[in-house]
Amino acid sequence: MTDRVVWLPYGAEEAEHKLGGLPEGLRVEAWTSAKELPGSASDVEFAVMPYMAGPGALDRIEELTSLKVLQLQSAGYENVVDLVPEGVTLCNGGGIHDTATAELAVTLALASGRNIGRFARQQAERRWDGAWGVSLADQHVAIVGYGRIGKAIEARLAGFEVASVTRFARSEKSDPEVRPVDELGEHLPRCTVVFVITPLTEQTTGLFDADMLARMPDGALLVNVSRGPVVDTEALLAETSSGRLRAALDVTDPEPLPSDHPLWEVDNVLISPHVGGYASSFEPRRDRLVAAQLRRFAAGEPLENVVN
Amino acid sequence: MTDRVVWLPYGAEEAEHKLGGLPEGLRVEAWTSAKELPGSASDVEFAVMPYMAGPGALDRIEELTSLKVLQLQSAGYENVVDLVPEGVTLCNGGGIHDTATAELAVTLALASGRNIGRFARQQAERRWDGAWGVSLADQHVAIVGYGRIGKAIEARLAGFEVASVTRFARSEKSDPEVRPVDELGEHLPRCTVVFVITPLTEQTTGLFDADMLARMPDGALLVNVSRGPVVDTEALLAETSSGRLRAALDVTDPEPLPSDHPLWEVDNVLISPHVGGYASSFEPRRDRLVAAQLRRFAAGEPLENVVN
Repeated sequence: MTDRVVWLPYGAEEAEHKLGGLPEGLRVEAWTSAKELPGSASDVEFAVMPYMAGPGALDRIEELTSLKVLQLQSAGYENVVDLVPEGVTLCNGGGIHDTATAELAVTLALASGRNIGRFARQQAERRWDGAWGVSLADQHVAIVGYGRIGKAIEARLAGFEVASVTRFARSEKSDPEVRPVDELGEHLPRCTVVFVITPLTEQTTGLFDADMLARMPDGALLVNVSRGPVVDTEALLAETSSGRLRAALDVTDPEPLPSDHPLWEVDNVLISPHVGGYASSFEPRRDRLVAAQLRRFAAGEPLENVVN
Repeated sequence: MTDRVVWLPYGAEEAEHKLGGLPEGLRVEAWTSAKELPGSASDVEFAVMPYMAGPGALDRIEELTSLKVLQLQSAGYENVVDLVPEGVTLCNGGGIHDTATAELAVTLALASGRNIGRFARQQAERRWDGAWGVSLADQHVAIVGYGRIGKAIEARLAGFEVASVTRFARSEKSDPEVRPVDELGEHLPRCTVVFVITPLTEQTTGLFDADMLARMPDGALLVNVSRGPVVDTEALLAETSSGRLRAALDVTDPEPLPSDHPLWEVDNVLISPHVGGYASSFEPRRDRLVAAQLRRFAAGEPLENVVN
């Protein structure tokens, strides 16, 4: 029986190493660029899409005439799902970015409170000048969006002596208690650090508008690691420019933030350029998912993370 | 019976609020500046030294002829202990800075790995430009110095999926396992993030010299929140300038770092100006200690944190 062809983000030798061995009966080829297909296009049955492949990545998918499974490295799949030919199982990379994204969310909260942005700019000026910090300890935390990343944020808060954690999601749940996001405005006046990691939906677009931001207490911090349009940029600009609120943003609206945007210059705002998932913890988790999916594929078992 | 006079960092009304009430039989006066003594110098029995009082703070201590207890807000007491008159019990602020200092240590490690210093400088240039981060997840952590702050650092790592934690202190202990610092060099080659929070002693001065730093693996991060002289600055400069190691330093040698020092300009080095304990979490913990000490004092019970 001929080996079944699989395309991975690396060649056979590296795959053996990274995946801790490969199931029998598979032949690996490296697919590293969305534009260039390996020679075995008509034979490949299982393909892992190159990371951050960008638009046009699926232009030649019709050439993959034997394709059975397309595995993404991103959690998002909205731009891909309609382009996948009938009969091809589409799997997303759900879970593999949780660690890096939750880590960045907590990093931003800590760095904002402990003045790391200010100290980094002083460092460029060779200036040693202390500043009183706001600890994460004793804060009343809200997590808006309580999926995998929201839970991973909460896990990271465990050792930091926060005063309370209030969780919000679309619908109410218990154990642990999750409040419906409809009640957010009523709880916000006592939330001093608010992590936003909700999906972008019709309900969450503009969720943090002027009225909602006005409910946050003086000095509170908004950390956005979800999508820019969940927050009304003009309203946030007003509340941070006045010095009333602080913000730490991995996402903005518009994004990338244009160089003439006034948000760049607000003292109370820390900006990272959408790098939530962009860190060393991604690859081992991607490889663990790929290894498990290949094992299931080779054994004829149902795959995880199927989204179509 | 006349009320006994106590000097606190705030007046009577604020004390009632901050300390959750005061024991009977005490009269509070505010002592907020080391240079200016309240009028009741010859009556005060229990005094909390102003924070960061600096040298000269004890020049007039002979005027406090009724003093029984001097409570410090700092953990360090080396500069004070010899100046305290016989018969006065000296108590340090041990414990009240642990939260803020451990929090800063973890903040520095996260901020260094996730490029927050770089992004803050880009923000000043209005530039949106991503960079691949090094997660705290999957790292092999060493904690050098396993007192209260070392433990508080470890507690904060709990949710971050670190691969391992190896603890070092002067002497070996079990449950949890603590290695003697003599063995540090032997373990360092597999430690990718090293937190330094050891006290400055003869043994630890220059502990991280060229040889010890050379044992750290390529790309590893040194976080120093103890005292500058624990690390050989020239050796660290060499290892970070070459790009082989990263460092995040809340303390330096010399300190403050002179404006012409080459360490300011090293890309892989993040510097905060000795602000470990300088954050909002300090005051509530200081107030809890003061409240407990006043209760003991009023009840004639033994005090905590006695250092003389």
